[in-house]
Amino acid sequence: MNRQPVRVAVDAMGGDYAPQEIVKGAIQAARGDGIEIILVGSEDAIHKEMAMYNVSQLPIHVVNASEVIRDGESPVAALHHKPDASVPVAMHLVKEDKADAVVSMGHTGMVMISAIEILGRLPGIKRPSIGAILHGLAPNTVVLDLGANVDCKPRDLLSFATIGCVIARRMLHITNPTVALLSNGAEEGKGNKLTKEAYQLFKHSDLNFIGNVEGHDIPRGRANVIVCDGFTGNILLKFSEGLGDSIIEHLKFTLDKRLPNEELDAISDDLFALTHIADVGGGALLHGVDGVVWIGHGRSKAPQLAEAIRQAKLAVETNLVQELKAALAKVRNEC
Amino acid sequence: MNRQPVRVAVDAMGGDYAPQEIVKGAIQAARGDGIEIILVGSEDAIHKEMAMYNVSQLPIHVVNASEVIRDGESPVAALHHKPDASVPVAMHLVKEDKADAVVSMGHTGMVMISAIEILGRLPGIKRPSIGAILHGLAPNTVVLDLGANVDCKPRDLLSFATIGCVIARRMLHITNPTVALLSNGAEEGKGNKLTKEAYQLFKHSDLNFIGNVEGHDIPRGRANVIVCDGFTGNILLKFSEGLGDSIIEHLKFTLDKRLPNEELDAISDDLFALTHIADVGGGALLHGVDGVVWIGHGRSKAPQLAEAIRQAKLAVETNLVQELKAALAKVRNEC
Repeated sequence: MNRQPVRVAVDAMGGDYAPQEIVKGAIQAARGDGIEIILVGSEDAIHKEMAMYNVSQLPIHVVNASEVIRDGESPVAALHHKPDASVPVAMHLVKEDKADAVVSMGHTGMVMISAIEILGRLPGIKRPSIGAILHGLAPNTVVLDLGANVDCKPRDLLSFATIGCVIARRMLHITNPTVALLSNGAEEGKGNKLTKEAYQLFKHSDLNFIGNVEGHDIPRGRANVIVCDGFTGNILLKFSEGLGDSIIEHLKFTLDKRLPNEELDAISDDLFALTHIADVGGGALLHGVDGVVWIGHGRSKAPQLAEAIRQAKLAVETNLVQELKAALAKVRNEC
Repeated sequence: MNRQPVRVAVDAMGGDYAPQEIVKGAIQAARGDGIEIILVGSEDAIHKEMAMYNVSQLPIHVVNASEVIRDGESPVAALHHKPDASVPVAMHLVKEDKADAVVSMGHTGMVMISAIEILGRLPGIKRPSIGAILHGLAPNTVVLDLGANVDCKPRDLLSFATIGCVIARRMLHITNPTVALLSNGAEEGKGNKLTKEAYQLFKHSDLNFIGNVEGHDIPRGRANVIVCDGFTGNILLKFSEGLGDSIIEHLKFTLDKRLPNEELDAISDDLFALTHIADVGGGALLHGVDGVVWIGHGRSKAPQLAEAIRQAKLAVETNLVQELKAALAKVRNEC
């Protein structure tokens, strides 16, 4: 295939280990096929980091962003007072078709607001949402929303379902993904006011809706797309991480001296990956804005950054946003 | 101490393994100190089971209940058409002061409705709630509600907090339990509409309120009482079970042949206990009715039944219901 390389704008200033680990990860990713990296941030700082590597043959450009957003600044105010900060500059590159995707390990609120304001929302989307594929646990399942939308209406859940189906089709290659509502019981009558109303909306939609699933059905991958409000999703996501940490600690104590250290470390890493659902690539795609945007954890290092860039590239190559736009328009026409 | 034995009415007909495992578990419990068992159900069936054990010296009585509730019957209808079924008969024993507590592994809805109708609710309680002490994970933490109250008002969360504090004081011997709201962020402004409103109510109450906690704070036991609506609590509870099962399966596969079978089994049992939060005693106390009632899982066997009886006895001995009544009255007077 002779396609154009995917141009990923990387926020070089965002994250706990910026710019060092960001530049290092971007260089790793740039060694892959079909990718072009645009590092956005303080030119001086970026060039200083790049000087430590042999990058002369790599497709890496630098775009200067002169302003810096400090911890604790309000994202909305920061966006308006510092338009030349790395996050908005990166978003403008996508808006002006100078880049195909943005990857940032910076402040979640700042990335979210900049994406909404600069790229715009897709039709029918109130706030973009964050989903996760349960890679280790249930690799054919996407759960969303995981925290962006706290108070939801039934229509929001329908948007999440639509988004989830596009992810499942494009990223997981599932032709006709099954969709379920996360609830406190499997029967149709079970649920809170929100999910009971959404049940009726889902039932009369074009979705391949299989009804309610319960908490234990998530790790079993009972549906390809599992939908919940962002309040529930966020609590679940973090509970999973906390439970994973507790279990790892417990096992390290129990298995100490019974297994060689390296085996114990491998088991811990496994369980970490299983329970830290959103840690693959150190974050998640932001769905519902008019562009490919990856929001990562501040604690991400070079390997997570490189993986995030690969995931963003995949989203561009599979036309995720265009497909989503079409799917959302279809839902709007039906309702 | 020369106190009266605690009289526990046991529903001999409820549960997947009734009456065999129920009678067996009741006999185990009756061998303990300060306990008297009243087996409620079909006299013939109970006596047939009891004949298999040497029970002549044990404080076990049988009270006949002539009617049987079938799977799929509506609890409300069943209660009115079959007042002589084992669950309502057991509740009446408490109501008439012929027993101090009820333990049932039968249909949750039936036990709940019978408790409400026959024993009555405590002041300010809309529906009784179910909480769990996180024995293995965070032994000084109670989480509630775990499913009885799906759509909640801020006042309901305040009732749960009050109930949780009484459990923490009486069952965990914590003098001034800390209370937190489960939310999607630690800061005061975080939460959904319900928890944000409840935050203000909690803040101006007499509770030792420490603010919001997040999902990962649950296994860390960040507060003695963690409050959520029953929809969220139920999903969490079941997710924990499902995640636990997945991890156990994963470890069995990974550690197969690397550890002796009995060690692997011990690890599995440990992790099961850690993640199956509500499985200690095979169920939980029902809080907010005017009596001590234990609702167990249908799948409970003799050891769970014996443990449930011990938990019910503890609740009676610590005056849990009287204390709760006083605490709820205090909250009502304040608001």
